[in-house]
Amino acid sequence: MTNAALVATYRAYLTALNERRLDDLVRYVHDELVYNGDTMTRRQYRDLIADDTEAVPDLFYDAQIIVADNNRVACRILFDCTPQLPFLGFSPNGQRITFAEHVFYDFGDGRIAAVWSVIDRHAIREQLSRR
Amino acid sequence: MTNAALVATYRAYLTALNERRLDDLVRYVHDELVYNGDTMTRRQYRDLIADDTEAVPDLFYDAQIIVADNNRVACRILFDCTPQLPFLGFSPNGQRITFAEHVFYDFGDGRIAAVWSVIDRHAIREQLSRR
Repeated sequence: MTNAALVATYRAYLTALNERRLDDLVRYVHDELVYNGDTMTRRQYRDLIADDTEAVPDLFYDAQIIVADNNRVACRILFDCTPQLPFLGFSPNGQRITFAEHVFYDFGDGRIAAVWSVIDRHAIREQLSRR
Repeated sequence: MTNAALVATYRAYLTALNERRLDDLVRYVHDELVYNGDTMTRRQYRDLIADDTEAVPDLFYDAQIIVADNNRVACRILFDCTPQLPFLGFSPNGQRITFAEHVFYDFGDGRIAAVWSVIDRHAIREQLSRR
């Protein structure tokens, strides 16, 4: 897959998440993947995302930087949202928060095989404790 | 600069950090750069790194994943170290910790012009509170 095709596939994956078309994950994610070192099924990965979007209905994956090469994608994703239910171990307080996720993906045969994600929970903690 | 040359430059930058050759930063970092959205001088950037390596003498930048394209570099850096002084707002307790930094760089004319970094402080917090 060319880098341009890889980026197009990755952007289509984010659009599916943003449009909550989680059935479409079969197109973008392998049956099994490695998430931060742990093996999980696509169903479990889907459930993680579904939990997040239930807790944060206005969660929108805004890709700020995408770097792709040789079946690897790195993305800086910015979130600007208002959690309604506990999220990442934080209790919502009705306040809007902004934070980044920096995430690496390994693609195999055009689908995600591994994910390494760091979410800026420090930023979330600082914003939610401000009042 | 080709992607291969960009990766070689980036690896040389990490080696300079690991060998504490901070005078060499002039080769790798612009006079001014943007760090997580804030403008700073190379001197200020150097001071940030010097503070970290003073607090954590065995800090070693271990590049696990590097993705480079079109003057952008993304890196997953793994740290396995024992802080001796307060570090990132945490008090050391003599315990060894492991954590990742996911960081994006914009290069201009072969040197770093912008940095977007997320450090997994959540992992640090969890490890330091374990006992």
